[in-house]
Amino acid sequence: MEKYKMLGKQSIKFKNPPYIMGCASVVGEKEAEGPYGQYFEKLEMDPKAGEDTWEEAEGKFQEKAAELAIKNAGCKVTDIRYIVAGDLLGQLMASSFGLMKLDRPLFGVYGACSTMGESLAVASMIAEGGFADRVLAITSSHFASAERQFRFPLAYANQRKKSATWTVTGSGAVVVACAEGKKEEKSKVHIEGITTGKVTDYGVKDSMNMGACMAPAAAEVIVQNFIDFGYEPEMYDKIITGDLGLVGKDILIDIVHERGYDISGNYMDCGIEIYGSDQNVQSGGSGCGCSAVMLTGFIMHKLRAGEWKRVLFVPTGALLSQVSFNEGNSVPGIAHAVILRKEDL
Amino acid sequence: MEKYKMLGKQSIKFKNPPYIMGCASVVGEKEAEGPYGQYFEKLEMDPKAGEDTWEEAEGKFQEKAAELAIKNAGCKVTDIRYIVAGDLLGQLMASSFGLMKLDRPLFGVYGACSTMGESLAVASMIAEGGFADRVLAITSSHFASAERQFRFPLAYANQRKKSATWTVTGSGAVVVACAEGKKEEKSKVHIEGITTGKVTDYGVKDSMNMGACMAPAAAEVIVQNFIDFGYEPEMYDKIITGDLGLVGKDILIDIVHERGYDISGNYMDCGIEIYGSDQNVQSGGSGCGCSAVMLTGFIMHKLRAGEWKRVLFVPTGALLSQVSFNEGNSVPGIAHAVILRKEDL
Repeated sequence: MEKYKMLGKQSIKFKNPPYIMGCASVVGEKEAEGPYGQYFEKLEMDPKAGEDTWEEAEGKFQEKAAELAIKNAGCKVTDIRYIVAGDLLGQLMASSFGLMKLDRPLFGVYGACSTMGESLAVASMIAEGGFADRVLAITSSHFASAERQFRFPLAYANQRKKSATWTVTGSGAVVVACAEGKKEEKSKVHIEGITTGKVTDYGVKDSMNMGACMAPAAAEVIVQNFIDFGYEPEMYDKIITGDLGLVGKDILIDIVHERGYDISGNYMDCGIEIYGSDQNVQSGGSGCGCSAVMLTGFIMHKLRAGEWKRVLFVPTGALLSQVSFNEGNSVPGIAHAVILRKEDL
Repeated sequence: MEKYKMLGKQSIKFKNPPYIMGCASVVGEKEAEGPYGQYFEKLEMDPKAGEDTWEEAEGKFQEKAAELAIKNAGCKVTDIRYIVAGDLLGQLMASSFGLMKLDRPLFGVYGACSTMGESLAVASMIAEGGFADRVLAITSSHFASAERQFRFPLAYANQRKKSATWTVTGSGAVVVACAEGKKEEKSKVHIEGITTGKVTDYGVKDSMNMGACMAPAAAEVIVQNFIDFGYEPEMYDKIITGDLGLVGKDILIDIVHERGYDISGNYMDCGIEIYGSDQNVQSGGSGCGCSAVMLTGFIMHKLRAGEWKRVLFVPTGALLSQVSFNEGNSVPGIAHAVILRKEDL
């Protein structure tokens, strides 16, 4: 039927692509000291952001990112019709508490570290479907709150495996707007389409090797994106995963290659990039905040500058909980792909 | 603008209201023995549903509810374009693991016990926006997994306060379909519109008195629904909250009355209803599964039979995590309203 925007098995191609009206990134000190430090808009030097607990601190990072993104979009908080928000913590603590002050209708979403892809996808559908003119998509993570949630309290000072990742302290926020055909929208970065992932489980049980857990899910959604849109890998200036790390990267490229596509030439991973080799982070960065701050910092910079015209942004999540892990379950993965496009559509 | 479906401050009135193609409820023994037992489709006698852990059991409840709902809708699993799913557990364990076998694109959502309202709202927007022909909205809860997550292990045998609620063991699933103007759709229950809630915090800190935490959020979203749609309370045959319990009910009716509306005549609460007074459940039932099984069991029965023509379904959530609670935070609430309509639209 004409009205449908569905494409292939798992994708949407927007008829009236929504655009990114404004965005912002707020990061911690370690992230600001990394190789992409200059691209992040705001550095919060205090890891507790003036709050009493790590969880409240993470919420504060969200609040600051949200306020900045809304300001950068040139609008007021009350212009935001919906917030689509998530984080890694149990019961989305950072989003629930951090965004309360904004007093906007809220949809909480969870896809582990793939959540920025999920929130962008849902926000885009809300905007393009005519349900809102402006939607805020936001996620965060925090090293200290994530360690407490998933691994060991910081004070325990556990040793870290080579395959372990370092949870990014930061929040990225995007104001997604419904395109109205105005002239000034033409120069904005648009969301051309989305490919939504399934839970994919290859049976990996190592919570210190999340790249291996997530790589199969990332491979599935990337290959499905190529099939659904009929795009070759070269049609993307970059194909960017969230936080596969060094171990996950090789697995991803191998699986995608087995499926008949070579992405080795234009692939990058936010987790590998965000920290320098001298920052003692083992396999790279991770967390909802990792892809969110790289998107709202570096990736949007490259797109806005016109250096990249089309990017496949694929945040990747490991569906891990301390309970499921302690009960001996495997760690399934999920990934959500979003096509970002600079050229006029 | 014509294309928008926005109404008032927080609502959507669908131009082409999606309809409920099929639904199903799966409950545990205690729920089956309650006054609404006859309306639930499937009783699972084994609280572990044949699994090793409470969390896996809850996932199994979801899997069974999903499969039944899809069968009742007369379609196949592969006809479902998206699943919008959530539960109360950290990192949505029940949804992530329980729905994996279905192998469909998944959006995880979290709004505490309001999640059935959120998943229905998101699923309806996806269907009405032309992004899918069929979307599965599903939530679950489980007494034993929730006690472990939020309160005490069962083996501790703690005493329960009079204001405490009993988490429902069950899962409800709904297949939401995009209306295509076919004749057979006319007799189905439609989703006329939605009103999306904000996080509302009145500073209540008692995790054993969640009705008081949630009642203000429920009141806000119900009053906003009346204002946005221009409806009087009498235009609903029933206004049904999720799990306010006996304590929350009185608070809700009082707050709504202060705002100028009297809902005392046509109000009911799933949590108060689901168990009998002889079932030793203190203030009533609660959990994502409570409103989900009452919707897919009793409420849909009344709508399909034509006894109710228009219902305001308002699942209510207490944004509580064991970490935020132990850190001394208050328990904010959120509620999402969905208008269910039987008459031809």
